[in-house]
Amino acid sequence: MEKTNIAIVGLGTVGAGVARLLLDHGDRTARHAGQTLWLKKAVVRDLSKKRDVDLPAGVLTESLSDVINDPEIEVVAQLIGGLEPARTIMLQLLEAGKDIVTANKALLAEHGAELFTRARELGRSIAFEAAVAGGIPIIANISQCLSANQILSLEGILNGTSNFIVTQMDEKGSSYDDVVRQAQELGYAEADPTMDVDGTDAAQKLAILSHLAFGATVVWSDIPKDGIDRLDPDDLRYARQLGYRIKLIANARLADDGLELSVGPTLVRIGTPLAEVRDAFNAIRVIGDAVGPVFFHGLGAGQMPTASAVAADLIDTAVGRTRLTFQTLEYFSIDQPPRVKLRDADTIVERFYFRLSVANHPGTLSAITAVLAKHKISIASVIQHESEDGATTANRVPLVIMTHATPAGAARRAADEIEALPAISGPVVRLRVKV
Amino acid sequence: MEKTNIAIVGLGTVGAGVARLLLDHGDRTARHAGQTLWLKKAVVRDLSKKRDVDLPAGVLTESLSDVINDPEIEVVAQLIGGLEPARTIMLQLLEAGKDIVTANKALLAEHGAELFTRARELGRSIAFEAAVAGGIPIIANISQCLSANQILSLEGILNGTSNFIVTQMDEKGSSYDDVVRQAQELGYAEADPTMDVDGTDAAQKLAILSHLAFGATVVWSDIPKDGIDRLDPDDLRYARQLGYRIKLIANARLADDGLELSVGPTLVRIGTPLAEVRDAFNAIRVIGDAVGPVFFHGLGAGQMPTASAVAADLIDTAVGRTRLTFQTLEYFSIDQPPRVKLRDADTIVERFYFRLSVANHPGTLSAITAVLAKHKISIASVIQHESEDGATTANRVPLVIMTHATPAGAARRAADEIEALPAISGPVVRLRVKV
Ligand SMILES: NC(=O)c1ccc[n+]([C@@H]2O[C@H](COP(=O)([O-])OP(=O)(O)OC[C@H]3O[C@@H](n4cnc5c(N)ncnc54)[C@H](OP(=O)(O)O)[C@@H]3O)[C@@H](O)[C@H]2O)c1
Ligand SMILES: NC(=O)c1ccc[n+]([C@@H]2O[C@H](COP(=O)([O-])OP(=O)(O)OC[C@H]3O[C@@H](n4cnc5c(N)ncnc54)[C@H](OP(=O)(O)O)[C@@H]3O)[C@@H](O)[C@H]2O)c1
Repeated sequence: MEKTNIAIVGLGTVGAGVARLLLDHGDRTARHAGQTLWLKKAVVRDLSKKRDVDLPAGVLTESLSDVINDPEIEVVAQLIGGLEPARTIMLQLLEAGKDIVTANKALLAEHGAELFTRARELGRSIAFEAAVAGGIPIIANISQCLSANQILSLEGILNGTSNFIVTQMDEKGSSYDDVVRQAQELGYAEADPTMDVDGTDAAQKLAILSHLAFGATVVWSDIPKDGIDRLDPDDLRYARQLGYRIKLIANARLADDGLELSVGPTLVRIGTPLAEVRDAFNAIRVIGDAVGPVFFHGLGAGQMPTASAVAADLIDTAVGRTRLTFQTLEYFSIDQPPRVKLRDADTIVERFYFRLSVANHPGTLSAITAVLAKHKISIASVIQHESEDGATTANRVPLVIMTHATPAGAARRAADEIEALPAISGPVVRLRVKV
Repeated sequence: MEKTNIAIVGLGTVGAGVARLLLDHGDRTARHAGQTLWLKKAVVRDLSKKRDVDLPAGVLTESLSDVINDPEIEVVAQLIGGLEPARTIMLQLLEAGKDIVTANKALLAEHGAELFTRARELGRSIAFEAAVAGGIPIIANISQCLSANQILSLEGILNGTSNFIVTQMDEKGSSYDDVVRQAQELGYAEADPTMDVDGTDAAQKLAILSHLAFGATVVWSDIPKDGIDRLDPDDLRYARQLGYRIKLIANARLADDGLELSVGPTLVRIGTPLAEVRDAFNAIRVIGDAVGPVFFHGLGAGQMPTASAVAADLIDTAVGRTRLTFQTLEYFSIDQPPRVKLRDADTIVERFYFRLSVANHPGTLSAITAVLAKHKISIASVIQHESEDGATTANRVPLVIMTHATPAGAARRAADEIEALPAISGPVVRLRVKV
């Protein structure tokens, strides 16, 4: 049987999972690749560190040059996180003639154009199924399986850590800080979970998907984003009373005048598929003009789900499919003019949820509704609760307003003006409502 | 730009949809294929019939030899249904050196081994994404995207017509016959819907998926199957009272001693994803040993969803991916020993729902429970309703029993014995309960 020699660079959570699939299930990968995938080297920083997998003698090395200088190694799973040294190592591997498989979305979102262009120049390929939504094969589905469609919209829960946190806050009533600590103990959240909870990770994944689905050259940091790091448990509770859950939704929608993109905590109606995605699961709903809506749900992170995606890419690369796809689709090509432009976020028409703390005296609601009317925002529903302790004489009470569809810019300006009203204290919480 | 010449054979519902994608969206297919997909011929039986698509002059023909004898035509979408002449035409096209794309699951389930073997001998490929679950790309997902996994189970709603019928019966309380008529008017059900409603179509699709997921050489007619054609609205109602919906579920599960396969109306707990699949949608839940559970939901039939799958296959075939996959995976190879054997259906352990009409006199329940005890079937719950008209003195009352997990053979034998008790009239309804 033919054989392709593989190296893994970075033997952490994902790398160890991939090594296990290659070592323990060689028969399976051989059957699906029509050849043996042989793990020849695994590069780490520290040889003495205990690894999550037993490697045959001679496989583990601290020296990247053991891979670079070995012409027998054709395919490399590059599984170091972050930008550097991952970027430099990727370029070195490409120069050395290796095809690459990676799970590093931060690197692709930041340096995708450079890396893909260099790979194409050198006649190499980069596969990255594991970079978005872990075990859900969303990259292959969008760029191959649904390729006869114009994708009209994509919306998804792309960050498992955030979803775990909001699920626990919502279902257990736990505080944000407690749940983050629990997520870290369970291994869902990193020691520094900032990029997960502030929406960066979801925005980076959305940028990658938008590129594939819409041919949009998106700089991830241009995507308007909010995280769940400032989500108040009160909003989860009010949302539930209104029939919604709050989820960190990444959203892309093709409109006549461009592509709408956003990442943020969003009210999603209870009972709809995205609202029911719990814990560390991810989900994506894609609408194609021919296929209609297609919904995918699965584990968005974790050792073996992510390794499943990396190993499928290794098989595809060994078989030769990746090279064909990579050459044909010109992923992230800087030579291709972008097919769509981004819409001004302010013109995106959506429904909104506002929560504010208002003075409990005559005229307050009238002042607020006057601001909304001025911005032509019509009100769908209002909940004015009694104060938390039930005293109707309390000074300040929470007020929740759901609007009808309105341009996001108008909603933002109205919120700013309402915030400046004397009867209002504290910030006006403003969340999208998924229609 | 390079060009691949395509022909469509059979310009019915699906064929016309594929023609539209090729003609109206040539830019899109060209971008994803890196070349033009040029519709050169469309073969029909009757030139005078009005078509659902406008074809350029010279494309429509009654003569298959216009395709067979044209060496410029490299890829053919074979979209005639049924076994003959579809089988003969496929063989002729293969002999003539064409790669094939098809949506005909009945043909593949029946003659897959012959057709795939002949294609391999001739160095040709057959792609069949549209044959299972319409627009959901389940073939590619199982055979490529999840290829690093041992698939442990597959369960799905694979027949849109049946699902439409049970959804309408359940939600509107309509009778089976009324809903079938409505489904025919809406174009969901064929003039003769037998293969859809008796479970044949789902069993054929399950046979194809089992082949890909488990390497099982399954003769579809060996799969134990029941349809929804004898489903009683009473059972939908009792199931709902117990917290379940009834769905036509195709099920495959790998056990230590072989592969369990079944198709039949099954109680699925309300709120779980499969229970919430409505109308003509399909859904599949796959569990892989690395990836965990992955859930897919989308339109399982209809002109454009099915055309989306066929056109993706045409692109994959033109790009060259299909050939690599087809060569590597040895689909339906008769040379490959089957990797798993089928389990004896009687040994499959499941929960069951029984409904029977019992004489309303002392000792009846005791006689029934004695039969169950004899077969070591333990009871999870019993609903003995008053008779429909509320009269407690009625002669016969419905009795519903939910069992704990028990071998299917024991459940069947117990049902037969209960049916023979003098206090029982009519058949004992016996349905699986999804755990
Ligand atoms: N974990 C997930 O669930 C998941 C899901 C999807 C995508 N990803 C992505 O997958 C990538 C890897 O994630 P991970 O969770 O596996 O990270 P990790 O557990 O932190 O592992 C990173 C590995 O890289 C190695 N490394 C770092 N710098 C190196 C260098 N200069 N030379 C050689 N090795 C070096 C580390 O070596 P030492 O062990 O010697 O320190 C470690 O083994 C990241 O891009 C991440 O975003 C992860
Ligand atoms: N419809 C769906 O939603 C769907 C979904 C998934 C899979 N499929 C599968 O796709 C296939 C096609 O289904 P469909 O719904 O498109 O069927 P359809 O509407 O009945 O169309 C069949 C076409 O085949 C043509 N045909 C029959 N015998 C022929 C012959 N000897 N030579 C040339 N043309 C011939 C017919 O020609 P005339 O028009 O001249 O009679 C007709 O155009 C079937 O295998 C079906 O199972 C369908």
